[in-house]
Amino acid sequence: MNVKVVKIGGHILNDADKLQQFLVAFTCIEGPKILVHGGGRNATELAHRLGIRTNLINGRRITDAPMLEVVTMTYSALNKQLVAMLQGLGCNAIGLSGADAGVVAAKKREHPEIDFGYVGDIDHVRFDILDTLMKSGVTPVLCALTHDGNGGLLNTNADTIAAAVASKNKEYHAELIYCFEKRGVLMDMNNDHSLVNELTHAKYQEMLHAGKINNGMKPKLENAFKALASGVGAVRITHYNKMTGGTKVTL
Amino acid sequence: MNVKVVKIGGHILNDADKLQQFLVAFTCIEGPKILVHGGGRNATELAHRLGIRTNLINGRRITDAPMLEVVTMTYSALNKQLVAMLQGLGCNAIGLSGADAGVVAAKKREHPEIDFGYVGDIDHVRFDILDTLMKSGVTPVLCALTHDGNGGLLNTNADTIAAAVASKNKEYHAELIYCFEKRGVLMDMNNDHSLVNELTHAKYQEMLHAGKINNGMKPKLENAFKALASGVGAVRITHYNKMTGGTKVTL
Repeated sequence: MNVKVVKIGGHILNDADKLQQFLVAFTCIEGPKILVHGGGRNATELAHRLGIRTNLINGRRITDAPMLEVVTMTYSALNKQLVAMLQGLGCNAIGLSGADAGVVAAKKREHPEIDFGYVGDIDHVRFDILDTLMKSGVTPVLCALTHDGNGGLLNTNADTIAAAVASKNKEYHAELIYCFEKRGVLMDMNNDHSLVNELTHAKYQEMLHAGKINNGMKPKLENAFKALASGVGAVRITHYNKMTGGTKVTL
Repeated sequence: MNVKVVKIGGHILNDADKLQQFLVAFTCIEGPKILVHGGGRNATELAHRLGIRTNLINGRRITDAPMLEVVTMTYSALNKQLVAMLQGLGCNAIGLSGADAGVVAAKKREHPEIDFGYVGDIDHVRFDILDTLMKSGVTPVLCALTHDGNGGLLNTNADTIAAAVASKNKEYHAELIYCFEKRGVLMDMNNDHSLVNELTHAKYQEMLHAGKINNGMKPKLENAFKALASGVGAVRITHYNKMTGGTKVTL
């Protein structure tokens, strides 16, 4: 069976019109589907409102205890709002963190030099639970929280969760779709007409060395190649209002 | 089949030791069970930290748009934390708002004089979904959010949700358990040894007129009697560290 695993983040979540367009397009997908969302910008904004300082090292958020609380509030609330909106569109969604029914278990990151705090690296995905839900006609909506199996929540990058969810199933042929505000990967990031229809790993390396891959796109593509290597059938990077076209990423 | 629907709120949620004791006792319940939790105190605290004013009319929170955001963040984050803690104890919990899989649908409250804002009166409970989850060995944990079916979340009293969940099933014989920091209903609220073992509606009326039912207990008992009238098999009001004993409420 085919399953589409769709990831959104960034500007779309914070723009009511774009979000509505995206959710309509997502609802229109026929067959099994899973939505995975981030919310880092919202978390930064809530931290600011609460007077909590955000620490970043090499572009990565350091999740100390107050920041874990902020991230938990932001991601789980957004998750419930997206589910309510999908219900309004006729999509029978169910919102899940990695702790819910134990769908995404992780381990607290250990690093010789940097203490990332409550950041989780994925240990395993219970795709059987997602499968049961989809077979009951329910659409899972996953937020960027995992759990350590010892009572704690952990902060895990949503792109990474999307790739892991699309990698870990045997019965399904998964297509991983990264949705964002551009048409796909652009040869020239200021020119929307410079869409790269198919991006091989060799071409990616070439673009990377030529400085044509920006900081936001780099982890997306690295996750995309990692997902393909781990057995995801297909990866697509495309615009938020359609689930086809865009850039097909291949090894 | 029997199902225990357990409600917690108040001081227990805000006391790490008591909460842990409660969750251990909850995990020990054999057979199908559902947890329903509030979080009003935490919402009031978060609103204060964000500089958002809480309006109360007759002890009821007025849920305007900023307060709905606060309530959504508080309840959904607490829901995820409780689920992670239960997973750590070996209870395979799944956290749900009323929007998730459409389990609790509500209508925005209409009142001739007071605009309660985004407050929902329950329309229907999808007990079939809860049943499917429990039959898969998953324990539902419900927070005090419902949805209007048109894309919006609503704030609904957790006691009311617990009563509605325990009322709406046919296959199961439901026992509704209200858990809190006292041993049960007390004849003298300052004397823990004055436990009322069985409280009939007649006795309740008597105690009410004698001023022996405080403001926190009154809505719990009213919901209890409403639940019994609507077909809930049994209602118990008891201490958070055991799921038996306490006060048995009868018609």
